[in-house]
Amino acid sequence: MPAPVEFWFDFGSPYAYLAAEKLPAIAAAHGRALRWRPVLLFAVLRQLDLPPPMGHPAKRDYLLMDFARSARHLGVPYRHPTRFPVVSPWPARLFHAIAARDEAAAAAFALDAFRAAFRDDQPLDDLPALLALAARHDDRGAEALQAAADGEVARAALAADIDEAAARGLFGSPFVVIDGEGYFGADRLPQIEARLAGTLAPHALETR
Amino acid sequence: MPAPVEFWFDFGSPYAYLAAEKLPAIAAAHGRALRWRPVLLFAVLRQLDLPPPMGHPAKRDYLLMDFARSARHLGVPYRHPTRFPVVSPWPARLFHAIAARDEAAAAAFALDAFRAAFRDDQPLDDLPALLALAARHDDRGAEALQAAADGEVARAALAADIDEAAARGLFGSPFVVIDGEGYFGADRLPQIEARLAGTLAPHALETR
Repeated sequence: MPAPVEFWFDFGSPYAYLAAEKLPAIAAAHGRALRWRPVLLFAVLRQLDLPPPMGHPAKRDYLLMDFARSARHLGVPYRHPTRFPVVSPWPARLFHAIAARDEAAAAAFALDAFRAAFRDDQPLDDLPALLALAARHDDRGAEALQAAADGEVARAALAADIDEAAARGLFGSPFVVIDGEGYFGADRLPQIEARLAGTLAPHALETR
Repeated sequence: MPAPVEFWFDFGSPYAYLAAEKLPAIAAAHGRALRWRPVLLFAVLRQLDLPPPMGHPAKRDYLLMDFARSARHLGVPYRHPTRFPVVSPWPARLFHAIAARDEAAAAAFALDAFRAAFRDDQPLDDLPALLALAARHDDRGAEALQAAADGEVARAALAADIDEAAARGLFGSPFVVIDGEGYFGADRLPQIEARLAGTLAPHALETR
């Protein structure tokens, strides 16, 4: 059984939303599971001593345009969030709270949260709305879910994943890893498809 | 007559080499001229107060792998230069010296220079080899060509283009501009093709 495709992302990343809309079908088409790995990108970048991607005005202007254009190119509905940047710790912790019981449910929650943020303009720091969304995927009830998301286990799981991302040099969102080989950015989806289809050889084989 | 597609690049950029192999055919297929605009990326980034793209070890490791992988994905031969980073002021000045007489000849020289650097492992700061390559596209002879490349006119033309790139916020290489809309990176080639084919609408029309 081949290893799952790892999908590292920040819930506030528009490019990660685009990848989230495409990766499940791409992985499934090639018999791979998809493992969703939310992190907080600012925390990963801080560990790596890298600046935030939109800190410079020229890059910011370009990215704001490119988010929408890349969505149109991929045929994914996109509405730029009224409140941007998106504040992403709550969905990340809720993901871990749900994943501790049911990883598939957490993945379904993650896609819903991405659509809330980048299609329906629902702020991800609106905790009641986010808990209502999470309730579709976990039946504990809002109070217990919030407590779990705010608890030590979920916080520690998120912190460990942030540390792992930094240790592995995953310096952006989305970062897809296939059998140890990283692909940074939604614009790597064609290479990811080719790699899984076997028409793009693993890098390690080429350079041995 | 539609405006030329602008192709901004640094001769030391592997991704610009990949774009250089693909853009002439893409532009021609859609009835567009291609205008080659070499700059020195380090000078553009200095004006914009941005760090060099490979300054961080995690990014450097990724990019070294991704250059070769992206070349394989695009079906472009790629040999990573033994001397890297590539030192690019001489080919940029030679381009301008040739372009002052014949812009098409300068474009042909540029593609040859890219292939020398990234296919044939010929260092672009090897001036005699570079002049021999330029001689295919300009019949002034090596001495006169070197004098022209080292002269005020070529230097001023390159400096003006660097200033223009910085003023327009073109923060990387390659940067393709179609009717005022920028596309950063060799991974934007599919969007560039779609835009020229009319299947991807201009961003300005979508956001009006």
